[in-house]
Amino acid sequence: MIGEGQPRIDAYDKVTGAAVYADDIVLPRMLFGKLLRSPHPHARIVRVDCSAALRVPGVVAVASGGDIPKRYGILPSSQDETVFGIDKVRYVGEPVAAVAADDELTAQEALSLILVEYEPLPSIMTIEDALRDDLPKIHEESRKDNNVHKEAHLVFGDMDAAFADADRIFENEYFYEGNTHAAMEEHAAIAEWSDGKMTIWSSCQTPHYLHRIAAEVLGLPPSRLRIVAPPIGGGFGGKTEPLHHELAAAHLARNTGRPVKIALTREEVFYAHRGRHPVKMKLKTGVKSDGTITACHLQTWLDGGAYGSYGVATTYYTGALTPVTYNIPAYAFDGCRVYTDKPPCGPKRGHGTVQPRFAFESQLDEIADALGIDAAEYRTRIAVEPYSRSVNGLRITSCGLRECVEAAAKRTRYASKRGKGPSGRGIGLAASTYLCGAGLPLYWNEMPHSAAIVKVDRGGGVTVFCGVSDCGQGSKDMLAGIVAETLRVSIGDVEVCAGDTSLTPIDLGSYSSRVTFMAGNAALRAAAAVRAQLDDVDPDKTMTFAQAAVAAEARFGPLVGVGSYTPPDDLSGGYKGSGVGPSPAYSYSACVAEVRVDLETGKVTVDKIVLAHDVGRALHRASVEGQIQGGIYMALGEALMEASTFRGGLHQTPNLLDYKTPTILDMPEIEAIVIETHDREGPFGAKEVGQGPLLPVIPAIANAVADAIGARIYATPITPESVLRALRQKVLV
Amino acid sequence: MIGEGQPRIDAYDKVTGAAVYADDIVLPRMLFGKLLRSPHPHARIVRVDCSAALRVPGVVAVASGGDIPKRYGILPSSQDETVFGIDKVRYVGEPVAAVAADDELTAQEALSLILVEYEPLPSIMTIEDALRDDLPKIHEESRKDNNVHKEAHLVFGDMDAAFADADRIFENEYFYEGNTHAAMEEHAAIAEWSDGKMTIWSSCQTPHYLHRIAAEVLGLPPSRLRIVAPPIGGGFGGKTEPLHHELAAAHLARNTGRPVKIALTREEVFYAHRGRHPVKMKLKTGVKSDGTITACHLQTWLDGGAYGSYGVATTYYTGALTPVTYNIPAYAFDGCRVYTDKPPCGPKRGHGTVQPRFAFESQLDEIADALGIDAAEYRTRIAVEPYSRSVNGLRITSCGLRECVEAAAKRTRYASKRGKGPSGRGIGLAASTYLCGAGLPLYWNEMPHSAAIVKVDRGGGVTVFCGVSDCGQGSKDMLAGIVAETLRVSIGDVEVCAGDTSLTPIDLGSYSSRVTFMAGNAALRAAAAVRAQLDDVDPDKTMTFAQAAVAAEARFGPLVGVGSYTPPDDLSGGYKGSGVGPSPAYSYSACVAEVRVDLETGKVTVDKIVLAHDVGRALHRASVEGQIQGGIYMALGEALMEASTFRGGLHQTPNLLDYKTPTILDMPEIEAIVIETHDREGPFGAKEVGQGPLLPVIPAIANAVADAIGARIYATPITPESVLRALRQKVLV
Repeated sequence: MIGEGQPRIDAYDKVTGAAVYADDIVLPRMLFGKLLRSPHPHARIVRVDCSAALRVPGVVAVASGGDIPKRYGILPSSQDETVFGIDKVRYVGEPVAAVAADDELTAQEALSLILVEYEPLPSIMTIEDALRDDLPKIHEESRKDNNVHKEAHLVFGDMDAAFADADRIFENEYFYEGNTHAAMEEHAAIAEWSDGKMTIWSSCQTPHYLHRIAAEVLGLPPSRLRIVAPPIGGGFGGKTEPLHHELAAAHLARNTGRPVKIALTREEVFYAHRGRHPVKMKLKTGVKSDGTITACHLQTWLDGGAYGSYGVATTYYTGALTPVTYNIPAYAFDGCRVYTDKPPCGPKRGHGTVQPRFAFESQLDEIADALGIDAAEYRTRIAVEPYSRSVNGLRITSCGLRECVEAAAKRTRYASKRGKGPSGRGIGLAASTYLCGAGLPLYWNEMPHSAAIVKVDRGGGVTVFCGVSDCGQGSKDMLAGIVAETLRVSIGDVEVCAGDTSLTPIDLGSYSSRVTFMAGNAALRAAAAVRAQLDDVDPDKTMTFAQAAVAAEARFGPLVGVGSYTPPDDLSGGYKGSGVGPSPAYSYSACVAEVRVDLETGKVTVDKIVLAHDVGRALHRASVEGQIQGGIYMALGEALMEASTFRGGLHQTPNLLDYKTPTILDMPEIEAIVIETHDREGPFGAKEVGQGPLLPVIPAIANAVADAIGARIYATPITPESVLRALRQKVLV
Repeated sequence: MIGEGQPRIDAYDKVTGAAVYADDIVLPRMLFGKLLRSPHPHARIVRVDCSAALRVPGVVAVASGGDIPKRYGILPSSQDETVFGIDKVRYVGEPVAAVAADDELTAQEALSLILVEYEPLPSIMTIEDALRDDLPKIHEESRKDNNVHKEAHLVFGDMDAAFADADRIFENEYFYEGNTHAAMEEHAAIAEWSDGKMTIWSSCQTPHYLHRIAAEVLGLPPSRLRIVAPPIGGGFGGKTEPLHHELAAAHLARNTGRPVKIALTREEVFYAHRGRHPVKMKLKTGVKSDGTITACHLQTWLDGGAYGSYGVATTYYTGALTPVTYNIPAYAFDGCRVYTDKPPCGPKRGHGTVQPRFAFESQLDEIADALGIDAAEYRTRIAVEPYSRSVNGLRITSCGLRECVEAAAKRTRYASKRGKGPSGRGIGLAASTYLCGAGLPLYWNEMPHSAAIVKVDRGGGVTVFCGVSDCGQGSKDMLAGIVAETLRVSIGDVEVCAGDTSLTPIDLGSYSSRVTFMAGNAALRAAAAVRAQLDDVDPDKTMTFAQAAVAAEARFGPLVGVGSYTPPDDLSGGYKGSGVGPSPAYSYSACVAEVRVDLETGKVTVDKIVLAHDVGRALHRASVEGQIQGGIYMALGEALMEASTFRGGLHQTPNLLDYKTPTILDMPEIEAIVIETHDREGPFGAKEVGQGPLLPVIPAIANAVADAIGARIYATPITPESVLRALRQKVLV
């Protein structure tokens, strides 16, 4: 039941259109809610008057600022948001009020009748401005004089000595542009208040976090609140955090006694998104003349937008994983996240590690070239060893990094193609690593990160209860496959009940590439508990699974197994900031990109991408290859075209016509190579594939472009303009 | 959380109309199905031609006889039905074909285009005709020459000696008319076939039985079939058996790939019902002159209609419980169920025990009067002892029969009112007993009859998973209350997931008054398992429930408890037919009715009913009183007006205008007296209340009428005609 991969268990419903996504849910007497959003990047709210809107026929309720005053935030250290702006707004698109009406058009029209009197304030739109201490503060209560949100400073080893030991030092600056998840499904939430109980259906990757925060914000006992995640049309991190529309819908439902749906438009999603942070980076690396790294100092400045979101975690993540890929004996990291008057940034696929990976792998190519070492071979030389510990204390288990690099290089005949001079054709390689779930939860210690219940029916049917929500990545298949394999039944005999805080036990959600490793292990253990009872019935007799279930039930009572997963406590060296970075295992990847660059127009065409990924064990090969393809697709967009940029606080391209993502015509030939290292702690040896494969693609393309044009581009996206600029600078040099 | 009774947890949704019953379910692309039913009581099917129906625009599929040839029946010993009549039809209303169309009207119209060629056969319409061996057989393959379906002959003790020991012998004949459940909700089922899996939502009291039989009939692995019971608008036994419409909807859904709904009309329900058997009875009782019973011989003849249904069980039930109420040292029972060309009869509230109870309590009054003993006191004298065993081997635990009789008699000043001569005013008393679930399941040995899973969330929320379906009796409240009490949380903190074969563990369903005792015990045990973990955390520290949950989860992992209930194996003496009758406990009741009889018109008006019921322990007093009131209401209808009678195979009153049930204006003043005996095996001491209170009401009314008019009526319903007839006969005598 694991391995090659049977048809996905949710495929039929999705292909036939029968799958009911959040916005497909219609409840009797349901109202439609709409949010009024700020047109100002930074302004004082003088007055909000909803009375005219409330008089519109069909409008049932309005809400604004003080109605839900509770401050909240996904991280305990960043409780800086409210459902509606109170006193101030801090970015264009920040909600200030909401309307619930009998139909969507009425709600939309009524928004225009809400009078909000603003007093505009000067806005902070760049990292540089945010660092100044002579400009207005976005959050007056923050401790510093400037708009810094979070600083992190970590040092491992004697940096001065290590740099002094280097034969050469390389120092570069990089910039990684912000971008958004662009999931196919826009966010939607429906809230129902019935008899003192609230149910929220939401396209949400993290039902248990929403459960916790919605209870706090709404002032409800958690026991009276149920979160249900319907099938999700893509999350990529953009649905991991409780958002205004979910909380506003719940508030309006409670106030009206009627179900309320709020579904965001695509334009709203561009503002509400919590997408990839723009990051400015300085990277200084000391190496011996044979390439051995002696020291590395990474500095990052994250443009966080107006609120905290996951930003503290993102900040640490920009520094965490560099030493988990290559041997770095001395390492220093300085991270800084600033507030700006733009939509808050948060997690996107590869959370916080994509940006430094671009920098590091770009610089590695420069080092290799400067030292005359083949850039692929160089990476295998400095790769970390399996079952080792990084300089920043992280525990490494299985590691297929060398195998990945070698496989990708061999398949593309990398060595024979690279460095042929700036012919307009180039090849580039990069490698990377990613987490299999965070070693610590956001909130609590000493808790199961994932739990599962497996129930076996005497008819042979099996049901798995697990809190993860399937955002399209196939977690339901993963759970069904693991349980089916453990019990030796067909996947079709397994029903998966997921993403429901009432029906399923605790699970922290679908983020951080944690689901297969953590929920998978929980399900495996729950199934193994039942399996033990089945095995115990009569080992000498041949019987069907259902017969064994009947016999075991007669002997042991109802066949119910419970399993959970809590990461071991030796994952990190316990340094400050170790809440992010430690993971029970790390995936590894290597990517080779082959590109053509039109030297006249600067247009980059990617012809081929080969990506080798150490997934530990492929539980469902088609899904693994699908995730690799999806990661490549998303990386291609980030490398070449996607950019969340703002002018006067307004997103410059808040729609999918102007915000360029790759179409099918932009996609290169892709080859996915699955490397299996059979991690000793992963379920059946599995690690992760949802995020890791994205990371090396962007620097591989950058390295290929550098190979093609003989000049390096230090910023994403690599647009025709930036290519031409690099060519011009090269000529000037 | 148990005792007085908080507002019902499903009340809000039901009162506001938000509850989604089966017929409220609408799925995308759903078809509507209709059944073509036989107009003949007995006929050979020569030909079925659906081709014209299939050509009607909007008709998507048709089905008939041979399409689903598998024979089935709820009892293993009576596998005599098919979804559509094959070769023969045996009652008016038997389905012969079905249509699925885009809308209900088209389906209805298309039915008229199905050509069925019948060859009518002589029909058997009475018990007397069914016993003859010179008439056609309804089931040719049955072994006997007549139309007897089942005979049972049981003897306990030396009957000849016991009758010889009697000072007086009383011998009477009785007839109890058939009637129907008349639940407010008509039956409805929706089937969906998706990706090799079938889901059936049905207003069904027994999802696990439907699961089993639908798998067999449809030829599906049970692991690919899921039965969900939405809230049910009353069952009373009429929804305990898989019915044609459920299986036909599933067949059509599989054939069309589209969801199919079949909702029965009220008229169809009158034919499909499986209602109360008409029973002819002979009762012979020997007593000493002080009233002590020496022997009792009961003979019953059940008019079963055309198919087996639960009839074998019903037959045994007519003989099982008489010795569980009163001391009968020698007992013989002969039961006989016959096939007739009428709709099959099955279980209705008080299954099979209502009819002999009418006979026995009628005769007891005659005996008491003949011996000059107060009829109430007489019953207390001969009542069974708590913690004893009946002559037919049934284990009796708690017994509040004497308390019930005394309480009802005292409250009504029965002794002072009775026997004032035939004044047109009368008072009558009767007592009874009922099961708390069947001691053996229908199909299997050695299995949990009920199982439950209790999950505690770290936010303090509790979820109970249990397979019972709530048919309005409040089983969800019962489960929530028991779990809340065990865990010491509020009922509102408990979510109940019920009636879903995929999400809940095995439970035999909502019938036989088994839910509180069996599912309640399972839930209690599941909750106690979690409670033990919570108690173990830190007994010396004060903390909230949620805090304890967090602490216990850190220590023990996910808080999940599993519990089940299997009846003990010492419930019966092991005699043949002990599959029905044995129960882990018996409820007891006594009823006093006060009536007025118009001696001119024969009209009986019931002025007051006082009913004392030994419920063991009232878990939810309002629900207990509600069940007593509901039982009285239903009994009143059976006693005075309800009758399923047929002419030429046609139901004479197949609608709620002509089929008389009491209205609010017919209801007397009611007083419910709750007697608590704290059964040692019931959950918190509870027994049952869903069925028991109905039983004594009918003979109490009959006894009151006899007291009022000085003449006894030996048949139900006691109509003005039967009263006038009795008065005439009395005058003639």
